[in-house]
Amino acid sequence: MPMTYDDFKLLGLSIDMTRGKPAAEQLDLSRALVDEAGTVGYLSRDGIDCRNYGHVLGLPEAREFGAQLLDSPAAQVVAAGNSSLELMHDALAFGMLFGMPGHEAWRKREDIAFLCPVPGYDRHFAICEALGIRMIPVPMHDDGPDMAFVEAQVAADPAIKGIWCVPLYSNPTGAIYSADVVRRLAAMPTAAPDFRLFWDDAYRFHHLTDHEHVSANILEACAAAGNPDRAFVFASLSKVTFGGAGVAFFASSPRNVEWWQRHVSIRTIGPDKLNQLRHVRYLRDRAGLVQLMARHRALLRPKFDAVTTTFERMLAGVPGVSWNVPQGGYFISLYTPDGLAKRTVALAKEAGIVLTPAGAAFPHGVDPRDRHLRIAPSFPNLAVVGQAAQGIALALLRAIDERA
Amino acid sequence: MPMTYDDFKLLGLSIDMTRGKPAAEQLDLSRALVDEAGTVGYLSRDGIDCRNYGHVLGLPEAREFGAQLLDSPAAQVVAAGNSSLELMHDALAFGMLFGMPGHEAWRKREDIAFLCPVPGYDRHFAICEALGIRMIPVPMHDDGPDMAFVEAQVAADPAIKGIWCVPLYSNPTGAIYSADVVRRLAAMPTAAPDFRLFWDDAYRFHHLTDHEHVSANILEACAAAGNPDRAFVFASLSKVTFGGAGVAFFASSPRNVEWWQRHVSIRTIGPDKLNQLRHVRYLRDRAGLVQLMARHRALLRPKFDAVTTTFERMLAGVPGVSWNVPQGGYFISLYTPDGLAKRTVALAKEAGIVLTPAGAAFPHGVDPRDRHLRIAPSFPNLAVVGQAAQGIALALLRAIDERA
Repeated sequence: MPMTYDDFKLLGLSIDMTRGKPAAEQLDLSRALVDEAGTVGYLSRDGIDCRNYGHVLGLPEAREFGAQLLDSPAAQVVAAGNSSLELMHDALAFGMLFGMPGHEAWRKREDIAFLCPVPGYDRHFAICEALGIRMIPVPMHDDGPDMAFVEAQVAADPAIKGIWCVPLYSNPTGAIYSADVVRRLAAMPTAAPDFRLFWDDAYRFHHLTDHEHVSANILEACAAAGNPDRAFVFASLSKVTFGGAGVAFFASSPRNVEWWQRHVSIRTIGPDKLNQLRHVRYLRDRAGLVQLMARHRALLRPKFDAVTTTFERMLAGVPGVSWNVPQGGYFISLYTPDGLAKRTVALAKEAGIVLTPAGAAFPHGVDPRDRHLRIAPSFPNLAVVGQAAQGIALALLRAIDERA
Repeated sequence: MPMTYDDFKLLGLSIDMTRGKPAAEQLDLSRALVDEAGTVGYLSRDGIDCRNYGHVLGLPEAREFGAQLLDSPAAQVVAAGNSSLELMHDALAFGMLFGMPGHEAWRKREDIAFLCPVPGYDRHFAICEALGIRMIPVPMHDDGPDMAFVEAQVAADPAIKGIWCVPLYSNPTGAIYSADVVRRLAAMPTAAPDFRLFWDDAYRFHHLTDHEHVSANILEACAAAGNPDRAFVFASLSKVTFGGAGVAFFASSPRNVEWWQRHVSIRTIGPDKLNQLRHVRYLRDRAGLVQLMARHRALLRPKFDAVTTTFERMLAGVPGVSWNVPQGGYFISLYTPDGLAKRTVALAKEAGIVLTPAGAAFPHGVDPRDRHLRIAPSFPNLAVVGQAAQGIALALLRAIDERA
């Protein structure tokens, strides 16, 4: 007899499925980064004493490493601290306080807006909310944002200063921006002359299948389209080595990098170059990183499979229910019938499974159809992930039953 | 025959005396922090995996360590990244964007001002300049800012939202705030209800003499005066361990720390806890830090002595020339006769000695009397520091001669 929701509750589980955190076994893959830290010393290839102040755009070899990863000239790549989120925050804060290069500070205008493909990344939206930036939801397809909608919006409204993009294995829908979408984003006319693509290339190397999709080179696409300053590219090693102690990168046009340097030089005398040095010595080059990511995939893939096969077994054919089978990244999106996402989260919680709040993937936390759930299978161990997926499915089925 | 300025030029030296950077021999004192990094592991005392995301206010034991250093409750101390400068920048940026707790964002007002004791720290003033904050120079005495001036200003002008303070061994004059000055700063009525002391306790443990002066506990002083939210305290291990890879601290009232957490949580998922763990394990406690600082002092004191004894030998009695003999910190201030600082810097440069630009210690880089020079003796080796002091003295004497 299959397990019921009430049976599941009796298991008395306590599982946290809220955040896309690497599991300890993933962090262990980079054990050498801790264990052999003492062998790295403090002198860079160029003889820079990484212990001391300076090099506000990062250690040259860390910038070169980032340049390999992002297929961009090292002079256009900044190696920074442990968080790409803080680079995105600061880019927006600099826009608000100082303005984009050659343009007035956004704080001088009444209305500043951003396009937000939904479902999207809650922390992107939280920055906009904090800064008082009006968020315009954009329908998301499997190949990226709805471009007809995007083009119409940016052509008409000069308050729209940017769009959030996770171009590969998008958080949380797994969307992969098509070449056509990328080209249109790079080329579209915008009413705001200081419009920016906030290009969060978080999952560039985070494949879950043999088909290693390639992130478009948005800097080249923008330059080719005559909009060389349009893209701010963000990337991070947080889901490569350590969530809290990786290295983040910012890449953009020479003019934007000069702008970044000007403002960030007021803020700090430089990033932690010792951590950058350790990372470059440990990962060595792009090939080294790609090898490491294959080992992440070996750990992550079974967890994603455990969720999607459980959903397939328990939810296939249930009217109004669907989910994606991501080819990379950290999340699975589960869609309930309209109006049941919050109730499913509440029922899952009663059954011992903490999910990201329903609506989290939408601006201001409001999913207008109350149907989207973000599932983060990376952190718990494999056995638990399968159980959690079962519990989530049971909670959803119970929510449907309740309404019947 | 004593060396002349022209003799000195012929030596063809190239000496950088611009910034208060630790010398390599100082960084070597903390060699174990690099060499033994592999033995620290990644688990905190409390079992926190320091490799992963989280703990936005810092690792609990790092906060407790900071609390020991700052004589404050750990709950009121934040352990952050590698730079206290960036904490100061962000506190001001948050004020501009969001406002102090319970008050409107500064960006909504036409005029925001800060009191700037001069000479002061150029990077403090650069933040204000970048943010468009009006800077009001305040005369500086040996016991701190001119309090009659400060009290009159803050009582009268609600646009004044704060004052920059380096309370111990002040950058660059070596001033030591007296207990009376501290009490008056904590207690003075201010027209702005959201007035803040930006308390940059950069040199709290950086003594150069046997008399280890004690930084006042400004948080307690403010609380006692009925202004519990008035002080933002900043401190850093950059001049304890590594200039570019230390740990910075922010301490304030519970209300201000809650405010900080709210805004910084939008910016980042947390600081580099591995570096915090390494620091706590290496320095152990306040006593461990104090021992290390004694070794810094042994390296730094002869360099400061080389400068001041050279000045004493070559400049004593020269009309209009004076300097301070600091009891701690990183700088010596040399005062030329009015109008000769810039010329002295230019002559020193011709003789191979790069000094901080004249005026750097003043808002917008303008010393109204053009007489202040900031000497940073820490970075070059001892033999070179003595030579540099000689060259600076000769450049100053030549500048005086030129005008005679």
